[in-house]
Amino acid sequence: MAADYQAPVKDMRFVLDTVVDLDRIGELDGFETASRDTVDQILDEAAKFAGTVLAPINHDGDRQGARLVNGVVRMPDGFADCYRQYVDAGWGSVTASPDHGGMGLPWSLNVALNEMWQAANMSLADGWMLTQGAIEALEAHGSAEQKAIYLPKLVTGEWSGTMNLTESGAGSDVGALRTKAEPDNGSWRITGTKIFITHGDQDMSDNVIHLVLARTPGAPPGTKGISLFLVPKRLVDDDGRLGPHNDLRVVSLEHKLGHLASPTAMMSYGDDGGALGGLIGGENQGMACMFTMMNNARLNVAVQGLSIADRAYQAARHWARERIQGTDIGGRGHEPVPIIRHPDVRRMLMDMKSHTEAMRALCYSAAAAVDLARHHPDPMMRARHHGYLELITPVAKAWCTDQGFEMASLGVQVHGGMGYIEEAGAAQYLRDARITMIYEGTNGIQALDLVRRKLRQDGGQAAGRLIADMRATVAALGAERGGALAAIRDRLAPAVDALDQATNWIRDTFADDPVAGAAAATPYCRMMGFTVGGWLLAQGARAAAARLAVANGDTGFHEAKIQTARYFAEQHLPPAAALLGPITHAREIVMAVAEDQL
Amino acid sequence: MAADYQAPVKDMRFVLDTVVDLDRIGELDGFETASRDTVDQILDEAAKFAGTVLAPINHDGDRQGARLVNGVVRMPDGFADCYRQYVDAGWGSVTASPDHGGMGLPWSLNVALNEMWQAANMSLADGWMLTQGAIEALEAHGSAEQKAIYLPKLVTGEWSGTMNLTESGAGSDVGALRTKAEPDNGSWRITGTKIFITHGDQDMSDNVIHLVLARTPGAPPGTKGISLFLVPKRLVDDDGRLGPHNDLRVVSLEHKLGHLASPTAMMSYGDDGGALGGLIGGENQGMACMFTMMNNARLNVAVQGLSIADRAYQAARHWARERIQGTDIGGRGHEPVPIIRHPDVRRMLMDMKSHTEAMRALCYSAAAAVDLARHHPDPMMRARHHGYLELITPVAKAWCTDQGFEMASLGVQVHGGMGYIEEAGAAQYLRDARITMIYEGTNGIQALDLVRRKLRQDGGQAAGRLIADMRATVAALGAERGGALAAIRDRLAPAVDALDQATNWIRDTFADDPVAGAAAATPYCRMMGFTVGGWLLAQGARAAAARLAVANGDTGFHEAKIQTARYFAEQHLPPAAALLGPITHAREIVMAVAEDQL
Repeated sequence: MAADYQAPVKDMRFVLDTVVDLDRIGELDGFETASRDTVDQILDEAAKFAGTVLAPINHDGDRQGARLVNGVVRMPDGFADCYRQYVDAGWGSVTASPDHGGMGLPWSLNVALNEMWQAANMSLADGWMLTQGAIEALEAHGSAEQKAIYLPKLVTGEWSGTMNLTESGAGSDVGALRTKAEPDNGSWRITGTKIFITHGDQDMSDNVIHLVLARTPGAPPGTKGISLFLVPKRLVDDDGRLGPHNDLRVVSLEHKLGHLASPTAMMSYGDDGGALGGLIGGENQGMACMFTMMNNARLNVAVQGLSIADRAYQAARHWARERIQGTDIGGRGHEPVPIIRHPDVRRMLMDMKSHTEAMRALCYSAAAAVDLARHHPDPMMRARHHGYLELITPVAKAWCTDQGFEMASLGVQVHGGMGYIEEAGAAQYLRDARITMIYEGTNGIQALDLVRRKLRQDGGQAAGRLIADMRATVAALGAERGGALAAIRDRLAPAVDALDQATNWIRDTFADDPVAGAAAATPYCRMMGFTVGGWLLAQGARAAAARLAVANGDTGFHEAKIQTARYFAEQHLPPAAALLGPITHAREIVMAVAEDQL
Repeated sequence: MAADYQAPVKDMRFVLDTVVDLDRIGELDGFETASRDTVDQILDEAAKFAGTVLAPINHDGDRQGARLVNGVVRMPDGFADCYRQYVDAGWGSVTASPDHGGMGLPWSLNVALNEMWQAANMSLADGWMLTQGAIEALEAHGSAEQKAIYLPKLVTGEWSGTMNLTESGAGSDVGALRTKAEPDNGSWRITGTKIFITHGDQDMSDNVIHLVLARTPGAPPGTKGISLFLVPKRLVDDDGRLGPHNDLRVVSLEHKLGHLASPTAMMSYGDDGGALGGLIGGENQGMACMFTMMNNARLNVAVQGLSIADRAYQAARHWARERIQGTDIGGRGHEPVPIIRHPDVRRMLMDMKSHTEAMRALCYSAAAAVDLARHHPDPMMRARHHGYLELITPVAKAWCTDQGFEMASLGVQVHGGMGYIEEAGAAQYLRDARITMIYEGTNGIQALDLVRRKLRQDGGQAAGRLIADMRATVAALGAERGGALAAIRDRLAPAVDALDQATNWIRDTFADDPVAGAAAATPYCRMMGFTVGGWLLAQGARAAAARLAVANGDTGFHEAKIQTARYFAEQHLPPAAALLGPITHAREIVMAVAEDQL
């Protein structure tokens, strides 16, 4: 009964054209292969793969779940076959460097593919997301030998990658970890237990390359004493051939709320003397290496929020068109109608549509910043885009996943009583979505990262530029009189003002009163998410209006873009702006009740 | 690992004293037994029963679930024993009339007991909630004979009650139902299939009394042609003795997201010629009878939202005190601290605490209105309280369950990664809470009931009086200069203004443009929920301040009440007031995108 998934290629292309300007990115050095035709072809092929191969096994995968059988993780039926098709088609190689077998295409294109994989089958695509992160970390910090041996197989997907950070006493505070690494004859021996390891094992790839944070002897306490190690499931010789199993194993899989086909493992390293691993980067440089992986992963988790929202939206829309119940409140006849005719159902669908489009614009804008920060010819511009990327990453992660969960919940609601029944599929999206607010750094940690580090980087230039860019959009809408674009402007302008004031307050407050700054972090991050989302939709609306002005023949589509941006602006920007009070009064309200009175 | 539950008797008593004024209700005719001492004793006993008997089997009940075995529903281990203890202690008889073995105590007291049962074990207490509804319906509409035979056993709980409304083609549109009732020799034969029947069967009570909506021959179409029937699982002779099984059976149990120990049955009536039933009230009077039951049930579902929020809050608070992670951002030492010290965790707990208290005040105020609408000596006052009850019932149902789910989600978030693991228990509250937004009328249906019927009843007097009462509270806070009470007033006043304007807009709009009115219904209902919640907390804060002024010796508790009300007012009233735009622009924004562009 669970609904199909069709990748919204036309909507994706709209964002790639109007927000990302992918054509321009395709003109940058290194992206010669990303011609408009190639991009269209890749999007269409990916949409076909997502819709016909990945999506159909998503619901059954949830029902069956990943299982630990005699120490080996067994994926649900059909997953290994999908994985093989992904490898054979070369989907894993899109962004990786041609030096290691990659296609070297822009992240701005890959983000659209990631959206499709995650929407179609999040539990399966989770593994690919982590492999992408491992590739990024090795490309940035691996030795020439490590790159030569591991990257080609990771790029094809024949081997997969994982991130091993968390321990039972070291969650958000990764600096508290205790896993040990001891030098042994030019290699390292790793001993310890890691928890919550996504795709810690599976029966789809030929090898699993674990990137493991551990402490070397005499390392300083906290995050300064952490090193990153490459620890393969099966040892690999200098020629890249698979050898015996390493000294590591899956102890158990977690019994989770959702995301059931994605195995979440407790991993034990070194039960028999130590798992063999290689150091990535220098000793005690683990956090820097891990952040390369984490920033990538955070953006990808943001995309998961977008993906699950779109999947839930498609399912809800399908249900709302099929389900006949009640008569038209507008009085047009007494026959029962599809529930999509009911204003409250329409409101929910508009909320889902507008959120999905705002999240897409936000995630794709971040992906564009990845490309521009690396490939723009002007170093000043590279720095600008890097600043935007750094600033927006925690916002994208927290806001897209918070709202992705909210949209999945709306999707359940559109289904009425059937939404609560697992067979309908809507409940799976809700369960799956809930993890995205937690992993890769809880959304509270994202908000703290935003107010503590990202707002203050480069003396706050990135935030200042973002607000200036928003004001430019408001100004560009200045000539509008009446109509949807004027309504958007009239909501966006005060929201930007509120964001500006809130930003100044945080910047003025945090250094002297970090408790107040931290207490305001989540509402501030939320305000920024809505405001950036509304701003990017406004950009899209302007572009749509410009196209309509030259009568491009797709009137309904472009009018809908404008009206969707207006819905979002009117519905969500005033409440977002109204968070200014809670932010600037955080000191007085959050910590006022004594701890023992909670 | 799931946390204990301790009924917050002190907080309940605070609301009963400061919002409900239970002492005054205890002075009304008919409530002579509700002395202050008796109430205290009942609350303490109930808290013990909830905490030591019901709560400990809640988590295991979820893991085990209700099962259909050879056509018979089997409840999880321990449930039948708890049920028996409930019957033996007489908990089911609290509000029922002494004429049928009830204690005749006020709803204002019973609401606190319901809060405890639902928080301790929602899947089990669900059955009691429905039995209460059946008792209410029979007391109001049953014949003398039906009352004599069925009420005493329902009041003790030896027999349980159910509501049979929904069919696969008749959900929110109950008028579309097709179950038939045909007269047969002074009785009726019922034939049809009902779905989503909560506690449709179980192995705890000696009989199950189904209240079933059906159509009699020649009945008019729609809701005007619906009659209510009493259809016992086992037939009952005139002396109340159990006879043979009736012609009804459980076809299947639903595979749900949560609420797993509460059996949700598909029921088939009349596979062998017709289940025997008796008519309740007159023919075609079914909707009126059902609304007696439904209004009761809607308030009780509102209480479920409150209950799950409090249970989730208690679990999150417990975890936040026990879990050691990270250092104090305020710089007091470098040792790891319990996460309750972190401002963002504190913010989440404050959100949960303040919401729980606002919901409690709202639910209890509605229960008080039930008592006052029936027992107040002045008919004018009875009408007033009846008006408040009618108005506030859909708001309480929708807002408390929306926010109950939100609070359960926050509870997951406080737990971090462990929140996603089922053993921790937080995820169960999230799954359980999700149904409350759907059943007993989806929250969209509640909002529509509010704007279509409740706002317009008596020419809008109830809404007008509510707003006037709120303004009186604002005025009473008028003399405050600085401090928490002034801050509350400064947020409450504009929220009330916005609610007033929104109310006028809806009233002016609905008759001529029901589509616009319906499109605004949900944000309007949400705005009213937050505003009423903030207003009732403000009342509590005033009362707490008055007690502090006479130094009653419980300073910390009362200061926390004031600060909690302030948190809620500052955090939530400005965003709620900012819904005025989306409400009054609903016409322009909700239906603007063409259906085929969704």
